[in-house]
Amino acid sequence: MLMEGVDFRFPDADPQLVGRKALAVCLSDIAAMAGQPLAALVSIALPKFSGRRLAEGVHAGIEALAGEFSVAIAGGDTNSWDGPLVLSVTLLGQPTGSGPVRRSGAEAGDWIMVTGDFGGSISGKHLSFQPRVAEALVLHQVVRLHAMIDVSDGLAADLYHILDESRKGAVVRAADVPVSEAARLLGDKPPLERALGDGEDFELLFTVPEEDGRRLLANPPFATRLTHLGEITDERRCRLIAADGRSSSLERLGWVHEI
Amino acid sequence: MLMEGVDFRFPDADPQLVGRKALAVCLSDIAAMAGQPLAALVSIALPKFSGRRLAEGVHAGIEALAGEFSVAIAGGDTNSWDGPLVLSVTLLGQPTGSGPVRRSGAEAGDWIMVTGDFGGSISGKHLSFQPRVAEALVLHQVVRLHAMIDVSDGLAADLYHILDESRKGAVVRAADVPVSEAARLLGDKPPLERALGDGEDFELLFTVPEEDGRRLLANPPFATRLTHLGEITDERRCRLIAADGRSSSLERLGWVHEI
Repeated sequence: MLMEGVDFRFPDADPQLVGRKALAVCLSDIAAMAGQPLAALVSIALPKFSGRRLAEGVHAGIEALAGEFSVAIAGGDTNSWDGPLVLSVTLLGQPTGSGPVRRSGAEAGDWIMVTGDFGGSISGKHLSFQPRVAEALVLHQVVRLHAMIDVSDGLAADLYHILDESRKGAVVRAADVPVSEAARLLGDKPPLERALGDGEDFELLFTVPEEDGRRLLANPPFATRLTHLGEITDERRCRLIAADGRSSSLERLGWVHEI
Repeated sequence: MLMEGVDFRFPDADPQLVGRKALAVCLSDIAAMAGQPLAALVSIALPKFSGRRLAEGVHAGIEALAGEFSVAIAGGDTNSWDGPLVLSVTLLGQPTGSGPVRRSGAEAGDWIMVTGDFGGSISGKHLSFQPRVAEALVLHQVVRLHAMIDVSDGLAADLYHILDESRKGAVVRAADVPVSEAARLLGDKPPLERALGDGEDFELLFTVPEEDGRRLLANPPFATRLTHLGEITDERRCRLIAADGRSSSLERLGWVHEI
């Protein structure tokens, strides 16, 4: 559910991008489980003032992305009121291959890998990101995905979701975290801090057996960047290893406190 | 999608009944196709002020009704904002028997039948109605349901939905329209006008072959009242026959204009 004034503001936001994002976050959720998206149900509360123009923009944004992912817009509910725009999308999908990939299957020794890069999505990516549906489906075919999640809360926070549900720990190498250009350009915080702590990257974070990870890096099955940034451990803590070898604790919110 | 200030007002409305209604209207939609409801996804925007109390009330209302109909609450999205309460429920169901019953299958000679009674739902029924899921499933087993709809827009308006999609007409006998006690008690309009024009009765309106209709009345398969109020015709108009035999045109909005 996206709400005007919370998730976006008019006139800054383009209604098409608002519609696009409402569906894209759902696509990313289904990608996180290596599901095949099928059909969307769209409910909207439109402000009476300029409702028609907003409706057309939102619809165009949803429809274009739905077309890209062969998703049918199967129904929903259109309303008008004196309040701000509220948009709720429900996306149905089906499991593929050996079934839905969960957060709970990470095993000690697994490689921790990600698609794309991280941080600074507020500069634009949070509205225009490409949901990693195709990448997830391919990964589910070519490797043993032990655990997977899409990064919406932030790289560190979502890694903790995997660790908590798998009852495991992790080691992450700072030098291997793929930091986005946007995180570097924002300039107000260390880019690594943004890469670990900013949310809405909507990239895939997953764990695979080392052998499968090596195979992925040797023969990448798609053009989207793949990075190996650490390993799962039996020790129930999450350590961040700096370039100079010093170890610190990686916190849930991504803030790095040197020991 | 139910919106505070449009579909209900606080403090008049009980949050539990608001939650109940959000699910009940979906259950009624699935009943209209003789579907078996399965799982609900609930998205909510909660006002920051008293959000927790509202959330608990809404949740209790949804959960109680979901339990009654063996519906799983499978997911959703919980948000908080400075705006009014917005509640969007998506309900998944599956077809039963020979498949979903549509609006488009009415045939000339079919009996037009309804469950329950009509009019004046604003007095309370619109918040506390019982979705006719069980009745629809039984009807789909014991008779040939040619067309069915749940009455949300009003008895006349929803009959027109069947007639439009089936490309048929109808004759309705005024004396046979089951008028609710609430429609009589409101007193500001003729009760028949309310029964035909008021919305949100959430009763089933369906057409069956005459033989099946007779069988239903002879051996009602459930306690909910069943009424035969007219027939489907090939003539593409909708006539209302008064008690004295005079014929008028039944309009889409339920308003009856004497010829």
